[in-house]
Amino acid sequence: PAFQDVHVMIFVGFGFLMTFLKRYGFGAVGFNFLLAAFGIQWALLMQGWFHSFKSGKILIGVENLINADFCVGSVCITFGAILGKTSPIQLLVLTLFQVTLFSVNEYILLNLLHVKDAGGSMTIHTFGAYFGLTVTRILYRPNLEQSKDKQGSVYHSDLFAMIGTLYLWMYWPSFNSAISDHGDAQHRAAINTYCSLAACVLTTVAFSSMLQKKGKLDMVHIQNATLAGGVAVGTSAEMMLTPYGSLIVGFISGIVSTVGYVYLTPFLESRLHIQDTCGIHNLHAMPGLIGGIVGAITAAAATEDVYGKEGFIKAFDFTGAYQTRTPSVQGGFQAAGIVVSLLMAFAGGAIVGAILKLPIWGDAAAENCFEDDIYWEVPEDEESDVYHMHSPDKPDKP
Amino acid sequence: PAFQDVHVMIFVGFGFLMTFLKRYGFGAVGFNFLLAAFGIQWALLMQGWFHSFKSGKILIGVENLINADFCVGSVCITFGAILGKTSPIQLLVLTLFQVTLFSVNEYILLNLLHVKDAGGSMTIHTFGAYFGLTVTRILYRPNLEQSKDKQGSVYHSDLFAMIGTLYLWMYWPSFNSAISDHGDAQHRAAINTYCSLAACVLTTVAFSSMLQKKGKLDMVHIQNATLAGGVAVGTSAEMMLTPYGSLIVGFISGIVSTVGYVYLTPFLESRLHIQDTCGIHNLHAMPGLIGGIVGAITAAAATEDVYGKEGFIKAFDFTGAYQTRTPSVQGGFQAAGIVVSLLMAFAGGAIVGAILKLPIWGDAAAENCFEDDIYWEVPEDEESDVYHMHSPDKPDKP
Amino acid sequence: PAFQDVHVMIFVGFGFLMTFLKRYGFGAVGFNFLLAAFGIQWALLMQGWFHSFKSGKILIGVENLINADFCVGSVCITFGAILGKTSPIQLLVLTLFQVTLFSVNEYILLNLLHVKDAGGSMTIHTFGAYFGLTVTRILYRPNLEQSKDKQGSVYHSDLFAMIGTLYLWMYWPSFNSAISDHGDAQHRAAINTYCSLAACVLTTVAFSSMLQKKGKLDMVHIQNATLAGGVAVGTSAEMMLTPYGSLIVGFISGIVSTVGYVYLTPFLESRLHIQDTCGIHNLHAMPGLIGGIVGAITAAAATEDVYGKEGFIKAFDFTGAYQTRTPSVQGGFQAAGIVVSLLMAFAGGAIVGAILKLPIWGDAAAENCFEDDIYWEVPEDEESDVYHMHSPDKPDKP
Repeated sequence: PAFQDVHVMIFVGFGFLMTFLKRYGFGAVGFNFLLAAFGIQWALLMQGWFHSFKSGKILIGVENLINADFCVGSVCITFGAILGKTSPIQLLVLTLFQVTLFSVNEYILLNLLHVKDAGGSMTIHTFGAYFGLTVTRILYRPNLEQSKDKQGSVYHSDLFAMIGTLYLWMYWPSFNSAISDHGDAQHRAAINTYCSLAACVLTTVAFSSMLQKKGKLDMVHIQNATLAGGVAVGTSAEMMLTPYGSLIVGFISGIVSTVGYVYLTPFLESRLHIQDTCGIHNLHAMPGLIGGIVGAITAAAATEDVYGKEGFIKAFDFTGAYQTRTPSVQGGFQAAGIVVSLLMAFAGGAIVGAILKLPIWGDAAAENCFEDDIYWEVPEDEESDVYHMHSPDKPDKP
Repeated sequence: PAFQDVHVMIFVGFGFLMTFLKRYGFGAVGFNFLLAAFGIQWALLMQGWFHSFKSGKILIGVENLINADFCVGSVCITFGAILGKTSPIQLLVLTLFQVTLFSVNEYILLNLLHVKDAGGSMTIHTFGAYFGLTVTRILYRPNLEQSKDKQGSVYHSDLFAMIGTLYLWMYWPSFNSAISDHGDAQHRAAINTYCSLAACVLTTVAFSSMLQKKGKLDMVHIQNATLAGGVAVGTSAEMMLTPYGSLIVGFISGIVSTVGYVYLTPFLESRLHIQDTCGIHNLHAMPGLIGGIVGAITAAAATEDVYGKEGFIKAFDFTGAYQTRTPSVQGGFQAAGIVVSLLMAFAGGAIVGAILKLPIWGDAAAENCFEDDIYWEVPEDEESDVYHMHSPDKPDKP
Repeated sequence: PAFQDVHVMIFVGFGFLMTFLKRYGFGAVGFNFLLAAFGIQWALLMQGWFHSFKSGKILIGVENLINADFCVGSVCITFGAILGKTSPIQLLVLTLFQVTLFSVNEYILLNLLHVKDAGGSMTIHTFGAYFGLTVTRILYRPNLEQSKDKQGSVYHSDLFAMIGTLYLWMYWPSFNSAISDHGDAQHRAAINTYCSLAACVLTTVAFSSMLQKKGKLDMVHIQNATLAGGVAVGTSAEMMLTPYGSLIVGFISGIVSTVGYVYLTPFLESRLHIQDTCGIHNLHAMPGLIGGIVGAITAAAATEDVYGKEGFIKAFDFTGAYQTRTPSVQGGFQAAGIVVSLLMAFAGGAIVGAILKLPIWGDAAAENCFEDDIYWEVPEDEESDVYHMHSPDKPDKP
């Protein structure tokens, strides 16, 4: 069941979240579908080679499928930054490389550093977001204003995007708890995530209204910033964060994310030349960093009193070679995990961005960005005519 | 899993069910999202104080989250009556009070009267609907015809609403069985609800076609009245209603609800000044009453022959202080539960309505009702232009 | 949980998959809803009479509900062929007969021939599709070009259809594994289906682009052909097909289905007078046949080495009267199952088609096909006006 929930998030959640553009709905849902289906297969192979390669055969279980979904989740995040500006071939090449780098990064964090990251604040969100931001920086298009008129939403496209938002929001507790140990840790992860998300909605609405002229709400914030709470407890959700701690984390990440959309995204675009279509810096990068830091602090502050002796060892897997690790050392390793993820993202993003910049992948001209018509057979739309057919005061054929 | 199903109903089901208005989609989904996220937190606190307050800490489990979702469900119902006529601040104030009153009413019914109400026909639907109707009566706007043109649907908004309907319809069996005892009672509740809903669809379609001129179907009935069957077996679903009984209840509630939409809603608005945007009187109030009455009868008619000796005691929790209660007495208490819910709804609705009438909450003028533009940044919609860009016979810029 | 997944597929998946027509969204979702609700009740009764009739009572469990959903699935497939060309009364009559025939066919295959068909490649897809194609052949409308302009999609209707596609795609593994034995067989079925679907997406996208002028993708292929992989492993999913085998099956069925949409559907319509609105021949009929054949081969190739002695007997139920059946004999019976399904579909479709051709069911004239306005109260759509209200350069009332 947790697997199905995560699956819905990847395909419906991320797919529809990105349909907000007025003429890029086919691309958002369709390319997301394509890269997710391709990425999952490739991720299953990568995982097989890294983790469960036995006598020439790869064993596939449901847990592998969840991990493959997680891996693809980070590609979907990156897709958000470059949405509307790349060709399907570029997306497949990107997926190929990113899944590989994700697996390497995950292997370093989980196996070498022995870091806990059940909801993937570091491995999925921080890595995926900064990777995507680096790629979009390298693919910088100076003439993107030519398609500025298509970079907005229309009424119905915003409603389609809300389908994505609601599914991501509802299933995020499953996402953060999917690979936790069954029982206590899983329940804890789900409930902490839940509290954080609920708090995040409130601060997002409050700040969206406060930062806007005339106090109107902005649909972009409701669609995105409400989810930051889930990202920001990704690492710490299965730890003893307590509901109050979760509420505070959700509270803060809602503010950070909304403020980011209002002030930081325009700044990134005009000064640093980072064209971030979906604003993943606000939804994944910053909350991901918050999540990593909160995780490190929560781990460092862990005591046997709170977890119980057995629960303590189980929560952090302090067994075998890690038997003598203390909470504060674990906190240090968690922090190291953030740094490693960032370095991998910047280095990997730079290399993959350079590869995607090669003029052989058939990407669209700047004036055709955010436009389905380049890659899709778009129906010749006579909708307006159809709409008029019932209104008596407007003759259909003048 | 049952928790996730109920969650989907509250956020996606109720949210999209109310998007049918042509220019209030953002408000329907967005405000529903806001009040649900806020209501759940407040409900968790309320429940903690009423039920599980121990040594200064509140213990949260999955069952509490389901109960909080139920509580928010009744707020969503009320939202349906005042949809499009209130400000977000008013909605938050309403949520604050209604969650409190819901908890008091639930405490009286379940703990003091020892009533069975697994699917919440009384506690959720009857209470929520009559509460909402009282509030909307007090907030009566005499000049609402000024925004009459916006109070209809458009083609696509009706399709969005069908997303809500289908999710509510599909997950209603989970809703009615979520807090039943595992095993027999839970299966019984799901299957009874299922039969009732299926029968309800058929009578709704039949009566929708029969009551309309030219025999055309009305989307409003399909969106709403098809769900009445789930409401009407809320109390009795976990009892021995038998599939045939469920089919009959669904059959009747489909008729009552459809007839209500055609004849009763216009009457309520013109004579009693109850402006009921979504027609919750037909979907929740009347079927909720039917559900309460059917529950009382089913309880009163229960015998040890049908349930088995142990099953009988377990089904009605005739243990401890209630050891000597007979089925007919239980039926009486069930009936008393309906009356208490109604009284709480009318009294509470009158008070909360009076509070919301205070001119300090920034509600919109009558001519701006059912219009997102007041509270949302609505995209400047050039969709029609974009649509035309591919039609060769209409020059884009004349 | 598997039950809920299948339920979502029938109501949301099939319902929204068929909303792609520009003016038939109400009919697609609404009539699908109606026939599914009616079909489930009728299927429960049929099953009760065929399988679990005991002392005058019908026992209903969750497994019966899944089987009823499967049965309705085959009606939804048939609905795809005649979409937009039949009245609701015709649909109900069709459902009545098809559910009956489905039950007879299923009884012959599963009980008499002792065939394995967990995902219903034969019983659901092959039977449902060829049944539907026969019916639509008999209901051939020579003047259907009169409503040709309404037989296309518009931008938003294609996005609604993608909701259907994604839900079908995600939950197909649950569909194919729903009635498998718990444990190994169920896991195997889910993972095989999953691999097949993922491979299918890739070949569909590749061939959709290759077969089109200018290499553009066609939304019709993405909506439909991506699902063929799930149909084509319906029979063999629970067997030892291995992930590699599944990938190959998915690979091939994606190609077959896409090529079918481009070349075969126009041929069927112009030469054989089969007007197949949704192209079920490409999505269900051909992949269903592939599924049946792959199932027969996989069964014939089964050895005790691969399954283990106990697993082998369990996988094919070689117990009781079938104790002496060998894999190659089972393969023959599987092949016979395909032939029986085809015969039942052609014969049944011819009879039911003839019944539906009677001029008493109130079907629409050819120029009114694919038009909701005949059976639904369609809102008088002033959307374009509303859209203009915010664009400053276009005065609202000139």
